[in-house]
Amino acid sequence: MGERLVVVGGDAAGMAAASVARRRRPDLEIVALERGAWTSYSACGIPYLIGGEVHALDDLVARTPEQFRAMGIDMRVAHDVVDLDLDGGQVTVRNLRHGRTFKLGFDLLHLATGARPNRPALPGLDGKHVHGVQNLADARGLLDDVEADRPREVVVVGGGYIGLELAEAFLRRGASVTVVDRSPQLMETLDPEIGDLVAQAMRAQGITVRLGEAVQAVEEGRVVTDAGFVPADLVILGLGVVADSDLAAQAGIDLGVKGAVVVDRQQRTSAPGVWAGGDCCQSVHLVSGAPVHQALGTVANKQGRVAGINLAGGYATFPGVTGTAITRICALEIARSGLNEAEATAAGFAYVTATIQATTIAGYMPGAEQMTVKMLAERGTGRLLGAQIVGPEGSVKRIDVVATALTAGLAVDEVMMLDLAYAPPYSSVWDPLQVAAREALAALG
Amino acid sequence: MGERLVVVGGDAAGMAAASVARRRRPDLEIVALERGAWTSYSACGIPYLIGGEVHALDDLVARTPEQFRAMGIDMRVAHDVVDLDLDGGQVTVRNLRHGRTFKLGFDLLHLATGARPNRPALPGLDGKHVHGVQNLADARGLLDDVEADRPREVVVVGGGYIGLELAEAFLRRGASVTVVDRSPQLMETLDPEIGDLVAQAMRAQGITVRLGEAVQAVEEGRVVTDAGFVPADLVILGLGVVADSDLAAQAGIDLGVKGAVVVDRQQRTSAPGVWAGGDCCQSVHLVSGAPVHQALGTVANKQGRVAGINLAGGYATFPGVTGTAITRICALEIARSGLNEAEATAAGFAYVTATIQATTIAGYMPGAEQMTVKMLAERGTGRLLGAQIVGPEGSVKRIDVVATALTAGLAVDEVMMLDLAYAPPYSSVWDPLQVAAREALAALG
Repeated sequence: MGERLVVVGGDAAGMAAASVARRRRPDLEIVALERGAWTSYSACGIPYLIGGEVHALDDLVARTPEQFRAMGIDMRVAHDVVDLDLDGGQVTVRNLRHGRTFKLGFDLLHLATGARPNRPALPGLDGKHVHGVQNLADARGLLDDVEADRPREVVVVGGGYIGLELAEAFLRRGASVTVVDRSPQLMETLDPEIGDLVAQAMRAQGITVRLGEAVQAVEEGRVVTDAGFVPADLVILGLGVVADSDLAAQAGIDLGVKGAVVVDRQQRTSAPGVWAGGDCCQSVHLVSGAPVHQALGTVANKQGRVAGINLAGGYATFPGVTGTAITRICALEIARSGLNEAEATAAGFAYVTATIQATTIAGYMPGAEQMTVKMLAERGTGRLLGAQIVGPEGSVKRIDVVATALTAGLAVDEVMMLDLAYAPPYSSVWDPLQVAAREALAALG
Repeated sequence: MGERLVVVGGDAAGMAAASVARRRRPDLEIVALERGAWTSYSACGIPYLIGGEVHALDDLVARTPEQFRAMGIDMRVAHDVVDLDLDGGQVTVRNLRHGRTFKLGFDLLHLATGARPNRPALPGLDGKHVHGVQNLADARGLLDDVEADRPREVVVVGGGYIGLELAEAFLRRGASVTVVDRSPQLMETLDPEIGDLVAQAMRAQGITVRLGEAVQAVEEGRVVTDAGFVPADLVILGLGVVADSDLAAQAGIDLGVKGAVVVDRQQRTSAPGVWAGGDCCQSVHLVSGAPVHQALGTVANKQGRVAGINLAGGYATFPGVTGTAITRICALEIARSGLNEAEATAAGFAYVTATIQATTIAGYMPGAEQMTVKMLAERGTGRLLGAQIVGPEGSVKRIDVVATALTAGLAVDEVMMLDLAYAPPYSSVWDPLQVAAREALAALG
């Protein structure tokens, strides 16, 4: 009999690995186990489903269980892995439809167990109208609730990406939306004054933003905070996610930062024959060199692919992340990559900053609007450490130059001299990133 | 008495140098001489002026002569430098308003004489309704002609960027537009099959494209080619430009590729105390290592700045170009950076190619459309050599990642693993560039 690969988790990291392994090792038996009902879907698309830009939940599914089975992958949904026995080389699986539990042996194992929304232990936070939004089951539940009760007053707890994207989504639906965050700023991955620009823009669009206010409970029809009450028919948890590494932990596999699974460059865990990828595991930050937990679809797809190549006998590596994240909130585009001031300080960098405004396209073209770029550069070397962008349409994908320059370790004078593209409908002759690099260079003295 | 800097040429490269030198050396006397009537303008904006998106010619002027004079620069328009005496340290200048000629001594000299449109010696090509478009005087003449005669039949000779942008501009004005090019493809900086995509898109917009057809003469009301006649009220020359290096040549300063002025990394010419920048001089191509003539505003601004810093006693270098160019023709966005197949072959690279189609944004989002990316990678090393992009809105600035990766010498497997930005309104989870990099990696075997 041939070898068997068991994949735990049927979304990006799991199914990228399974698909690559399927192509590279036709002899391998591949069983993929997914707790939920959907496979290989875009969780990042959920806000656009709720907001009505995407019309059907199934549109977010890249590949169905049937499609995976047609590829020769034994894809089983509603199968929850409840125990991992490394010595015995087997997992214990519960079939959630029938309630039966069985054991399944493996030669190779890939853990792609994902992440789950943070849900503090506060009164009422497990209520019917309180939704964490991480997978399609969450989206289905939220959508059903929305369609049944048509909430007028929506409260988003926490000022992270998914929460703010859902704030926009409910604004589009015509609801009255309030964001409550205990911290003094939205989006803590941004520096405070850049976060302020986001808050200003959201308020200008009609979203109520309450900062420095801690939620204490959710009651019928309202959220209770340390500063009062906010009317709420529906509550969204936007408090970030935590790696779902229980299975790995229980089996004694090494965990790292924030409980995420430790992996090497090949996505190998501390247990021989066991790989991991995606939201359940950690990455190396290419600027700080420190381990980080970056639970994003881009990382999950890459790590899954790398794991799949390696477990099928090939060689590939995942070098790490630069901390890139972008989003759209109403008309505002927001992007960041690299280190912000707090992260640079924590990593031990001495740095200068430059914040500039420049038009997204040539200033004389119709539609030219100002975008803001903040850039950090290391004192002495001038090495680019990170950038944050807030602006109108045409701002956000510029962060890709930052991600590339960070990966290559370019200095800001090198960024200033990059042969970036210019034509009046798309940029000024100095791209805004280069204007920022020029100011950072001046700040270096 | 203090030292005097003379700047020849009042557009980007000249005035960037003059402005930087002004700030760095308050003691320096700076005289800037410009043959035409305008200073520091965006020639790249001319097609949008002709097409009506930009309303006034003055909108294209970044700084007027008066503004430069207010900065303490002795800016003289309508002053043509007709002779350069290096041994005597003086230029001969003709005041075009009064017709008087005078000599002006210099301690430091910066040549920013620009480029002029290629104008083959064919019958009728010096006619009233035949326009080369390189500077604002050309734009004024073209605009006057257009407003006086309201041409219905416009012929663009040559399939380069400015010609095709003007083809779009006249289409916007409601003219019937024909592009005639002697070569079998449009835009020879693209590989043939990518150029074909441009031709297809232009034809779909209603522009007549006649390829492999050589213009022989311009007659009253028509263009004569080796294949027949094309009705023409107005003819645009889109045959590229040639470095305007006559002054340097006459003074014995070294010229290089295509007659462009040779400069070192500091923008110093072969003559001591003489700098040059912009369309009149050559650059190093960072991928091939060869000298090239890249007459673009981005290069001119950077080279001017570098020259200005150095001639004022500072230190800065212009490292070179990656051959980035972008444009918009009707609804189509076109971009390239690095080497195309012909250039890679000429430089001695063995390479693989990958051409892919992918959506600009997540496929399930409204407005998702296909873009095409062609990528070249060196055999063996896998080093990225270049890329070409053709697609709808949202395609073109992605080339900046290519420019940055080329500068850093990244390989396609590194491009594939870049932490590029993803959110459904802006990209798929694998950016189209990464899909292309993945296919290029597969082609490397």
